Amino acid sequence: MTVEPVLIAGEWRAPRDPQGTLQNENPSTRQLLPQVFPVTGRLDVEDAIAAGKAAARELRNIPVGRIADFLDALAAGMEEQSGSLVEMAHAETGLPAEPRLNSIELPRTTDQLRQAAAAARDGSWRRATIDTGSNIRSILGPLDAPVVVFGPNNFPFAFNSASGGDFAAAIAAGNPVIAKANTGHPGTTRLIADIALKVLQALNLPSAMVQLLYRTPRDVGALLVSHPDIGATGFTGSKVAGLQLKAAADQAGKPIYLEMSSVNPVFLLPGALRERGADLAAEFYTSCAMGAGQFCTNPGLVVLQDDETGREFIKEASRLFDEGAPQVLLGAGGPGDIAASVATLTDAGAELVTGGSQAEVPGYAFENTLLTVSGEEFLQDPDVMQTEAFGTVSLLVLADDQDQMTAIAGSMEGNLTGCIYSHGDGEDDGAYDTVAAELRPRVGRLLNDKMPTGVAVVSAMNHGGPFPATGHPGFTAVGIPASLSRFAALHCYDEVRAHRLPPELRDGNPTGMWRLVDGEWTRD
Amino acid sequence: MTVEPVLIAGEWRAPRDPQGTLQNENPSTRQLLPQVFPVTGRLDVEDAIAAGKAAARELRNIPVGRIADFLDALAAGMEEQSGSLVEMAHAETGLPAEPRLNSIELPRTTDQLRQAAAAARDGSWRRATIDTGSNIRSILGPLDAPVVVFGPNNFPFAFNSASGGDFAAAIAAGNPVIAKANTGHPGTTRLIADIALKVLQALNLPSAMVQLLYRTPRDVGALLVSHPDIGATGFTGSKVAGLQLKAAADQAGKPIYLEMSSVNPVFLLPGALRERGADLAAEFYTSCAMGAGQFCTNPGLVVLQDDETGREFIKEASRLFDEGAPQVLLGAGGPGDIAASVATLTDAGAELVTGGSQAEVPGYAFENTLLTVSGEEFLQDPDVMQTEAFGTVSLLVLADDQDQMTAIAGSMEGNLTGCIYSHGDGEDDGAYDTVAAELRPRVGRLLNDKMPTGVAVVSAMNHGGPFPATGHPGFTAVGIPASLSRFAALHCYDEVRAHRLPPELRDGNPTGMWRLVDGEWTRD
Repeated sequence: MTVEPVLIAGEWRAPRDPQGTLQNENPSTRQLLPQVFPVTGRLDVEDAIAAGKAAARELRNIPVGRIADFLDALAAGMEEQSGSLVEMAHAETGLPAEPRLNSIELPRTTDQLRQAAAAARDGSWRRATIDTGSNIRSILGPLDAPVVVFGPNNFPFAFNSASGGDFAAAIAAGNPVIAKANTGHPGTTRLIADIALKVLQALNLPSAMVQLLYRTPRDVGALLVSHPDIGATGFTGSKVAGLQLKAAADQAGKPIYLEMSSVNPVFLLPGALRERGADLAAEFYTSCAMGAGQFCTNPGLVVLQDDETGREFIKEASRLFDEGAPQVLLGAGGPGDIAASVATLTDAGAELVTGGSQAEVPGYAFENTLLTVSGEEFLQDPDVMQTEAFGTVSLLVLADDQDQMTAIAGSMEGNLTGCIYSHGDGEDDGAYDTVAAELRPRVGRLLNDKMPTGVAVVSAMNHGGPFPATGHPGFTAVGIPASLSRFAALHCYDEVRAHRLPPELRDGNPTGMWRLVDGEWTRD
Repeated sequence: MTVEPVLIAGEWRAPRDPQGTLQNENPSTRQLLPQVFPVTGRLDVEDAIAAGKAAARELRNIPVGRIADFLDALAAGMEEQSGSLVEMAHAETGLPAEPRLNSIELPRTTDQLRQAAAAARDGSWRRATIDTGSNIRSILGPLDAPVVVFGPNNFPFAFNSASGGDFAAAIAAGNPVIAKANTGHPGTTRLIADIALKVLQALNLPSAMVQLLYRTPRDVGALLVSHPDIGATGFTGSKVAGLQLKAAADQAGKPIYLEMSSVNPVFLLPGALRERGADLAAEFYTSCAMGAGQFCTNPGLVVLQDDETGREFIKEASRLFDEGAPQVLLGAGGPGDIAASVATLTDAGAELVTGGSQAEVPGYAFENTLLTVSGEEFLQDPDVMQTEAFGTVSLLVLADDQDQMTAIAGSMEGNLTGCIYSHGDGEDDGAYDTVAAELRPRVGRLLNDKMPTGVAVVSAMNHGGPFPATGHPGFTAVGIPASLSRFAALHCYDEVRAHRLPPELRDGNPTGMWRLVDGEWTRD
């Protein structure tokens, strides 16, 4: 049995203290995939951190333009090898090669990398601030230590630990990355990391700027995020794993940015349903079934009033869920995980409208599933009712009236998104105000007349939200420049002699970045 | 025995479940002060949090201008009552009424409050960001929950939990505050909170915007920072207390901003000592003795080369420390705490140059104290050698050569500040570069030819630094607007109808704040 190498200190090498192996099935065929990956032990983690720390020291003297060149070249390299990347990602995740992987996710990923490169060159994300009266100047700078990135299973390119949003943000902020591949697509991550390594070598950059590990046992993961020589961690994944890592990082005083779970409540106000109920049902189904329902922003909870238009909506949505073919899930564990979540909901009083069982298709799949619960029952145990089911599953909450709908909004835990649909002519505006007032502080992104899936990579995006959706309500994992600021330290210079200042803080603004000078933003 | 009331839900009332009492001595006279304060139990904490949460809900609909009015009026109210505030603070802390309390700290405090008011009105701190192509808009907003502020003992006004930097930042960001008075000056904090209450009543603002508790037992403090209905915590104080609170807050997923401890290393390069050694000794003594050495930015560690000029510096500094009269410390615990820190240092191999004992004056005091240690011994146990002694105490590290000086810089844990003195004509520039490269990532604020005390309240200030100086390297506790962003959540609006957007995000920029629109900062 050949075990794939890890990437440490610029070399693909055999693991020093493997703790076992990892081999996945192709979720579309249930056949074993050929590659076998090592489970990483503490020695490899120590080596990776030492090499990452050395790379961070080298980066102190490397102009940001060269880091930006790396991100651009990685994007180009992924495009050049799109065929093999898409083939591998499809085999590992079951996600459709077209259009999803090749025409949607890969271009999104390379766009993100290029946006991050542009932000690194521009430097405006660093919030350079100058007080001329006191000659005190400050700017966000790198952490002088590697950033650990744990990628999720559902975006093998766009959130990959070696090419995704956290990776791009950490590198653009000037930090090396230790990528912990999601265990669902280690082969894809290995291909990407190899492209990255070759680009680093070609550009004569520190080759330990990108390192790769696959699975880590719990204690080794804890070591990774709490080691004195790491700078911070970016994690996207399950709440259970996220909270374990958070505990370890917190205790060591290491920043950790988590994106964990969210049911993304959607409120359908009565006027909107009267006006366009059937359209909303179609929109809802499309959003919920996107990516086989395995999106962080999947609409897993829909709140509507228990009246005739509400019941019509359920009927129509149910028809669409029924007719839609179950899609292949990301891995062998998917159906069981969804079944467990559905059981949690039904045990708590939710009723199945349609679906609810593993699907009989060649790959791993679960029936498109709708459940209902009354508003009263929901409010009896709102925490359990917000159990996330990572698939094409949604819980419809039937509220007695507007007051109960508002109470449900007020019972939401921290979520990435919250949507409110209302009548186009303002009939729902009163209800909107009361629901929105409760929802606003509980979600990162508030949407109108729009489903939550689709996280545009634009400057104003917030892919974040209050705990437990994330670990901190002030940061976003998507959206450049803001996402870069997570992986930075605030560096202040007090009466530092002019020639010793970094160029970004010198008089005359030689780099031309946006700076806050005596309270005014300027490029001068 | 009359026990002072707590301030909860707009009323000075008797504690519901007091856990004991707190009565301090006047540190200048060792006489008991007349007031007796209650130790707070869980019932009062629950009440305060419930009232604070309700106040946060009210604040949703209160324009920021009215919150700014409150901060301005609080500043004016403190000025009006400066006589009684200074008298009480002097009695509780031993800090000189003039110039320190009345002419330095109080004006600094009211200036901070007014800067925070101006920032609240201006709104530019909120980093409004608009992407016009996608119609996605985001802005920092309040936490919709009270912020808990733990003030330190050393600044009874400027860092007071009811008037200091964290308080001003939390209120200006739109949050109610639950002030946990430092136990060293509960009477001062009670006076300030009463001014705040009267201002809130006069302005018809939610009276629970400012609430006050005094001492909290460990479990009650933990409840305070981890309760589901609080937004965040700002803490300034000891590392032991800070880490206990951090553990509780982290586990609950609640942000906590800590400013804990720092020895603030000062590197005196050989050329600087040759050029102006005697001046530097005087500058060092003045800085170290400021506030009886009880500043977060006190220069507790000085690194210099073991040569003739180095030894002359030590001789001169020792003379100044010897001649300087010991000053009254903040409280009865001061001398013992300092003695313990000094013992830790001497046990680890440091030698006393001067001082080292409790001082025989009427009040609580400790001799001005200097210690030395060789660079080699320092590097054998740099963590212990960085033990903070909260008084006029400093450890002089004698390095063999420039390489060892650089190694010492590289052994620093996270600090608030780091200073480097160098020759005026550039003779030390080579040494500067190597030392600064190591020091930069380990400190929040890097200074040239200047001692670390004196934390200007200006936009570019960073009163922060890597763990364990604080809990997160990206935030500052001093410096407006940046300090406000700690107590905020990122609120994104995705295709939200124009009339429902907050004014700050509307087209045409009706509030005139700085906004990042399609990547460019503008007030248009």
